[in-house]
Amino acid sequence: MVPTVSMIPTVSMAPTVAMAPMRAVADIFNSSIAAHAIGAAWEIGLLDAVRDEKKVDIVSFSKKHDLETYSMQALVVALSVAGVLEHDDDIVMPGRLLEESYRSKSLFHWLCLGSGGLFTRMQHVLRNENRKGDIYRDPAAIAYACRDISKEHFDPAFWAAIDRLDYTPKKAVDLGCGSGGRLMQILGRFPETLGLGVDIASPSLKVAAAETSARGFGDRLSFKVGDARQMNHEAEYADVDLLTCFMMGHDFWPRENCVVTLRKLREVFPKVRRFILGDATGILLNKTNTKYNCTEDDVPIFTLGFEFGHAMMDIKMPTLQDWEGVFEEGGWRLVKTHLIESLSLSVVFELEHA
Amino acid sequence: MVPTVSMIPTVSMAPTVAMAPMRAVADIFNSSIAAHAIGAAWEIGLLDAVRDEKKVDIVSFSKKHDLETYSMQALVVALSVAGVLEHDDDIVMPGRLLEESYRSKSLFHWLCLGSGGLFTRMQHVLRNENRKGDIYRDPAAIAYACRDISKEHFDPAFWAAIDRLDYTPKKAVDLGCGSGGRLMQILGRFPETLGLGVDIASPSLKVAAAETSARGFGDRLSFKVGDARQMNHEAEYADVDLLTCFMMGHDFWPRENCVVTLRKLREVFPKVRRFILGDATGILLNKTNTKYNCTEDDVPIFTLGFEFGHAMMDIKMPTLQDWEGVFEEGGWRLVKTHLIESLSLSVVFELEHA
Repeated sequence: MVPTVSMIPTVSMAPTVAMAPMRAVADIFNSSIAAHAIGAAWEIGLLDAVRDEKKVDIVSFSKKHDLETYSMQALVVALSVAGVLEHDDDIVMPGRLLEESYRSKSLFHWLCLGSGGLFTRMQHVLRNENRKGDIYRDPAAIAYACRDISKEHFDPAFWAAIDRLDYTPKKAVDLGCGSGGRLMQILGRFPETLGLGVDIASPSLKVAAAETSARGFGDRLSFKVGDARQMNHEAEYADVDLLTCFMMGHDFWPRENCVVTLRKLREVFPKVRRFILGDATGILLNKTNTKYNCTEDDVPIFTLGFEFGHAMMDIKMPTLQDWEGVFEEGGWRLVKTHLIESLSLSVVFELEHA
Repeated sequence: MVPTVSMIPTVSMAPTVAMAPMRAVADIFNSSIAAHAIGAAWEIGLLDAVRDEKKVDIVSFSKKHDLETYSMQALVVALSVAGVLEHDDDIVMPGRLLEESYRSKSLFHWLCLGSGGLFTRMQHVLRNENRKGDIYRDPAAIAYACRDISKEHFDPAFWAAIDRLDYTPKKAVDLGCGSGGRLMQILGRFPETLGLGVDIASPSLKVAAAETSARGFGDRLSFKVGDARQMNHEAEYADVDLLTCFMMGHDFWPRENCVVTLRKLREVFPKVRRFILGDATGILLNKTNTKYNCTEDDVPIFTLGFEFGHAMMDIKMPTLQDWEGVFEEGGWRLVKTHLIESLSLSVVFELEHA
């Protein structure tokens, strides 16, 4: 008996009308895989290798880095389908979206690998009964991404703000210092300045302490566990004249809490001459600001993930106007605002005691 | 002093050349969020509500279902950005991609919510040192998705195969029965037939037993824990004349294992007259088959996630040709093949003892 084959027509529609939605929805599906793959390919070194070497044999690359070859070939296909890479069998080359993806690599890493545990539990987290805040994210992956986000997006505005200081800081405190990268930048620029990092996550501080020592800052840079929203008076804060805080200001909100935190920082750091505060702001979901809002047909990278992710963690992202309306009551005067359009809408505020 | 504002030019390129990659990469990012949102919106009932009612007030909907309102508004924005929904403030309506997304809802659920734990750890799983198989997926979410995948994609071919039976089965066994839906379909069609479900996951079997009883099949349908790849002779298998197995045949592979499993099934079920085997096959990463392969510029929905996900779990998906080349050695004769193009390339094989 010869086996027979039949086609099951599960889709029946006029092809020209139907194919556009079918292709569009398949693209959403494939893009989700590519988004994860961009972050992963960056972390394992493939994106840098392809940019540097232009042609990479994925089998040799996998062997060299002890990566599983067939899964790596799958990764290459996923990125080629999205246009990030191209490949001729096992030879991998830059695709038309490689440079733009590289510029955004840490935003994909933040979304998929750092915050993925939250997004993959969306169906649970949307239910009031299951809401327990930020418990599903991967702090190590988020720290990995944030270092690059800081470098790619905040550094130009950060240095512009530093260049405008009209004094040489004696002592700098960074709130939410992570592994201490920003303080090391400051101490590198000012050879006499001392630094103190404060972070709520003690594992980051262990990494920070090790790196501080390896980079020869051991005698000038120290760290302590603390919550920027709950600072207490300490003798070592009395002579701090530069305060910085990046990528966590949204945790100060809602407004009434933010006022309290800003006032507290004003008191606890009585000698601060400049407070440099950098963060992403709300431009999509929280509509208090009209001037900087994006429209839903042109949502830039990061915005939707950042604002939706924080909505699931019970944080309504403050807008630029929200921030501008809170400084005076919080005891600070806004001297200058640097706008960073490449990261949703991020800002670096230069503040001084009001 | 009046605060000043400056723009940090972090992107500088000719706008017409540059915007296309920037928009394309932002779309990959936003699509990743939308992919999760389609699965979640289905599970919490929003997709069905918008299809049925055409206009849904998301605030009322959230209150009614005890969902967090602001996160639900964010979900609506995420789906509107992707074209799945439209909204006028809080009134939500079908978008141009709703019907196609609805048809594929369980594939997104499978990818993002069921298998998301695997994809969000991609950077770890690619490293040989971290590979420990299928430990990061959410079995409950996968079961949730698979029931709809079965209904939307496999059912037409399954019924076509059942309609071609030239006997009334006395006793049917479903391997990898999950919560027993397929057996209940068979018992619904044939009022005299008995059913026995075998699954490796005992939690599914508890759900199955409860549903069996609720639907009045209690005296005709039973379940036992077992691995389809390691079946032993049992008296209750001796009179089984219909064998079915859906969405797990790829676990039989690689080839040498598959031959052993097929032979074992031939022995353990000596009276089976028809074996209906349904599964997705490889058409993208595993290139042994040329006729059914898809090209990388037109990868359909599901394929990339299914094959890449299984590559990370050390399973190279068998192609249609791989399957066709294994039945004879495994002791089975292929009578008919039903092709299901809507699900990557899935197949339903009708087999009989060789």
